[in-house]
Order: sequence, then structure tokens, then C-alpha cells
Amino acid sequence: MTEFTLDERLAADTVFITNWPLSRVLLMNDARYSWLVLVPRRADVSELYELAAADRAHLIEEIARASAALKSASGAAKINVGALGNIVAQLHVHVVARSPGDAAWPGPVWGNGQAIPYEPDRSDALIARLRAAL
Amino acid sequence: MTEFTLDERLAADTVFITNWPLSRVLLMNDARYSWLVLVPRRADVSELYELAAADRAHLIEEIARASAALKSASGAAKINVGALGNIVAQLHVHVVARSPGDAAWPGPVWGNGQAIPYEPDRSDALIARLRAAL
Repeated sequence: MTEFTLDERLAADTVFITNWPLSRVLLMNDARYSWLVLVPRRADVSELYELAAADRAHLIEEIARASAALKSASGAAKINVGALGNIVAQLHVHVVARSPGDAAWPGPVWGNGQAIPYEPDRSDALIARLRAAL
Repeated sequence: MTEFTLDERLAADTVFITNWPLSRVLLMNDARYSWLVLVPRRADVSELYELAAADRAHLIEEIARASAALKSASGAAKINVGALGNIVAQLHVHVVARSPGDAAWPGPVWGNGQAIPYEPDRSDALIARLRAAL
């Protein structure tokens, strides 16, 4: 059985926040949005239906938990959830805080312009706030 | 308690396929992609965390079921799943068959150009095939 290893591209684009029972919780290093990525720690899975049913049940609860925390921490109007994987095949779920006037509103964040990395101080503060909220 | 009514914009953009235990299953009337929309038949819900936990457990199974059926019916390279709701607040989950070379690949389908409605014959045939696969 292969062990879980985080995809290199996901690792490069994100900051580690915490491990939940199923998912690794990452912060996308893009100051334009408060944007979490949940990566189920299972090897060789790219589609939801390839997860075991018990893992799916955990995953939807972790998505709900991340969504509620992000909504409350950010005051966003809407949470966007997406599992695309057209570029990075490893199953990963985006949970993104959205509000009118943000850089892509009302369109999707994926494929929209270039990420703006956090200033180190800002990401530290946000990570601390998210760790508390999550 | 308010009764579930399908959002008018979702109704206008889609064709009814079937009702599953939780979700209404719709086909997006856009011949560019094989694209299902699952709408949990619950009133006044726009975020996943507003669903009851039991409904969330059903929803993830219905998403997996739709994804596997769509993958098998379409031969697509990847299934994209998204719950955005920036424009239509009623909770709805997109399940979209994607392949290299499609109209938006590798970007997201949402907000990408104009829908191309099906020719009536084509949508009838696709709906019949999807009903069989689902």
C-alpha cells in the first residue's frame, strides 16, 4: 500500500495549518482570498468516488467544519467549495471565502490571475487566527 | 417550515433528470460539457454546513454516485465538483465531466463563455443515457 505524500505543487502553493482526522489542512498562499485546501491523507485517490465511503463521510464533515470556521473568521458572504483536479490530480478540496468585490467575484477563483503571496507577518497572523477558528 | 422550491434560474438553465433521496438531479443545458447539478431538496440552505449532518452524509454519497456515473457515461478524464453559489444562493452542487481540449480546460467551467443549448434530439438521447447510468 502506497503512503500518502502531499503533491509537490500543492505543497509549493500552500502553508501547512494542521492535520484533521482525515485531511491535511492547508492555507493557499494567496492574499487575495482566505482560501483553505483540504487534502485527504490517502494515497492514489483523485476522484471522490475512489475514497472509501467512511472517508467520504469524514470528508464532508471536514469540509463543513472548514467552511463554517472560514465564514466566521472572514465574515465572507459566501463559501465556495470545489474539487477540480484538472491540473493536480491528487484529490484536494478548495474551501474559499468569497465576498462581492473580491478579485474574481462573482466568478470562480480558479484560473483567475496570479496569486499574490502573503507578506510573512500577515500570513502568520492569519494562520494563528485560522488555527484558533478551526 | 418552508417547502423546497427549485430556484428559478437553476430551473431555467437545466433539464430535469430525476429525484434521488436527497437531491433533485438536473442536466445543465449546455452542450459543451456533460454537466449535472444536484440540488438538495431542502428549503433555505445555501452553505453545506447549514444542512443537517445526515443530509450531508447523503449528499456526499449522491455526489460520488453522480461522479462515477458521469465518468463512466462520458469517458471524461476528470470529474469537477463545485458548490459556489455566488450568483444563485440555493445550495446546488455541480458535477461536471472534463477532458483535455474541452471549452474551458484546464480552467473551471463556471463563468467561462456562454452556454450552448442542446439540440432537442441530442439532449433527449443524453438524458436517456444518463437516466440509465444514474
